[in-house]
Amino acid sequence: MSDDFISLANKGVQKLHPYQAGKPTSELERELGIKDIVKLASNENPLGLSNSVVSALEKELESLTRYPDANGFYLKQALANKYSVDLNQITLGNGSNDLLELVARAFVDSNHEVIFAEHAFVVYPIVTQAIGATPVVVKAKNYGHDLEAMAEAITSKTKLIFIANPNNPTGTFLEQDELHAFLEKVPSDVLVVLDEAYFEYASAERRGDAIAWIKTFPNLIVTRTFSKAYGLAGLRVGYSISNPTIADILNRVRQPFNCNALALKAAETILEDKEYLEDSIVLNDAGMKDLTAFFEKHDLEYIPSMGNFVTVNVGQSGDEVYQKLLLEGVIVRPITGYGLPQHLRISIGTFVENQRFKEALVNVLNLQEEK
Amino acid sequence: MSDDFISLANKGVQKLHPYQAGKPTSELERELGIKDIVKLASNENPLGLSNSVVSALEKELESLTRYPDANGFYLKQALANKYSVDLNQITLGNGSNDLLELVARAFVDSNHEVIFAEHAFVVYPIVTQAIGATPVVVKAKNYGHDLEAMAEAITSKTKLIFIANPNNPTGTFLEQDELHAFLEKVPSDVLVVLDEAYFEYASAERRGDAIAWIKTFPNLIVTRTFSKAYGLAGLRVGYSISNPTIADILNRVRQPFNCNALALKAAETILEDKEYLEDSIVLNDAGMKDLTAFFEKHDLEYIPSMGNFVTVNVGQSGDEVYQKLLLEGVIVRPITGYGLPQHLRISIGTFVENQRFKEALVNVLNLQEEK
Repeated sequence: MSDDFISLANKGVQKLHPYQAGKPTSELERELGIKDIVKLASNENPLGLSNSVVSALEKELESLTRYPDANGFYLKQALANKYSVDLNQITLGNGSNDLLELVARAFVDSNHEVIFAEHAFVVYPIVTQAIGATPVVVKAKNYGHDLEAMAEAITSKTKLIFIANPNNPTGTFLEQDELHAFLEKVPSDVLVVLDEAYFEYASAERRGDAIAWIKTFPNLIVTRTFSKAYGLAGLRVGYSISNPTIADILNRVRQPFNCNALALKAAETILEDKEYLEDSIVLNDAGMKDLTAFFEKHDLEYIPSMGNFVTVNVGQSGDEVYQKLLLEGVIVRPITGYGLPQHLRISIGTFVENQRFKEALVNVLNLQEEK
Repeated sequence: MSDDFISLANKGVQKLHPYQAGKPTSELERELGIKDIVKLASNENPLGLSNSVVSALEKELESLTRYPDANGFYLKQALANKYSVDLNQITLGNGSNDLLELVARAFVDSNHEVIFAEHAFVVYPIVTQAIGATPVVVKAKNYGHDLEAMAEAITSKTKLIFIANPNNPTGTFLEQDELHAFLEKVPSDVLVVLDEAYFEYASAERRGDAIAWIKTFPNLIVTRTFSKAYGLAGLRVGYSISNPTIADILNRVRQPFNCNALALKAAETILEDKEYLEDSIVLNDAGMKDLTAFFEKHDLEYIPSMGNFVTVNVGQSGDEVYQKLLLEGVIVRPITGYGLPQHLRISIGTFVENQRFKEALVNVLNLQEEK
């Protein structure tokens, strides 16, 4: 009897390396017995859950024996109002990760090519690989997307292009005129996913309104998430806005209850909570200033970021510095897997968390102490 | 510019009809303005959420800005202890629906055949279709699986067989010796998913222990859920137990945060809450006796069920009776889509909910009133 089940798996899956999540604090506690851990590894919102969401969820707990609304009616209605789109343009996902995967699974097969940038979000190659499609990785320009080169990489086999703006893990940002010019070059039968997971953190003057472009570019799919500025990473809600036909297709492929009942309620609640969003952005801006000033003071090169994280060159093995920081009780993200072996990605935390990180980095890199 | 995006979708997806969930009470309220609705449509647990879970979740709310543990360590540990398996045999899913889909996506391609029974769970044809594989539907025997015919349907193209025990929507049950004899006939390179979503409701003497068979049949994958007897439908947690190689493959394909933080905590908590499980089963057994006695009294033919639901022949269009029951504020499930146009599936509710259903059915079918 054969139990070589690897060879029974689909080809793309056989070679698949799954997503590596940021180390949870509970895991570090188990492994090293360290308490009082600061986690700046997963671009989470350091503000804690909004009180409005806590109250809403407490009321919802009793009905958890019931299935979620498979159509997510109330959340879609709230999103449609906010963005002036129709309900049938929206697809809800188990985080925007779900949507990235759904687009690929619905439209891409093993004969197609999928284009994305070097140093872009690792889920793009993973979903491409899982389908057995051909990844086309376009070399980065200043750690970000080289849109001209990406347009030139389009062939008759190209079915999908992923663009992250701001980009994770580098935090680089594409201006609206660059993006618009790019979209004009993309054939209408090639889908473009514009992954705006960090949209709310980007400069309000410069981030524009890509959703309004869907009328002009029906092949454009904009994805966003409640995991970052809205502080609901633990609940898993993302969404895409697209033309209705694409949304119809995505809704056929998604699992009917991909967003659970509390996730739907929390997202609907936090959309109304403008104060939380503002607080998140203010806290992030202040922390970003604090950390970048620290890097500058210590001559550590960093990549200017529009996200809730900043990526810094530690001038030596990022993996090793990461390990040493763990021993100090600080979890950050090594990004060797993104082709940046000397960089670490640091999520912006609270004032106290940022302080702990700075102190730990001073110790680990033997930097001159701050005054 | 073409916006015919349907034709851009993968072939199987173009023809895909998505899962139709049971109508949520909120939707019926919106549509008909009816209040005080009884929903017996989705095989949900009528007991309400366990207090142990309410307490556990209340404590967990604050940390929801953090991502869930991508590995689900504590829940897997609890499951491994309960079932005497290794952690690396377990794959967690966003409900067991997620696992049914993951197995298909990881192992099946468009050249393969997938076998399942007539009147079996609709997610089997949906996941098969989404991949573009060929569904092989084996005619039912007494509304249940005809295992001999299913074994005969295996060809060199067969990659996967779905078996539900108890079956949904018919509630039919396969005895352990039948199942074992069937597994002996299945080639070792054909995967068998034994979907035991309703396992806990089945007779304790007869339901056996299919998980123990994985050693003998490494091509066997057992899936279970927290949505039914454990009362966590709104949170979406299911799992599979398989040989470690299959679990490795499934874990590569699943989304890293497919179970959210509250779902993980709730499932871990309810596994320890033996009283809730016992109460669920006692309530279900009593309700089943009540409803089947009612059907017998009124000469309505029903299919004997091992689940938390019972399927009854109303002797006329099930869809029409369903609509009339809606106007009485009672939601049940028509199953014309399952090839049973005169049957309705009724989930077992509380005593009061069952009473409401019986009264409504008496009105709608003009049955002689109960004394």
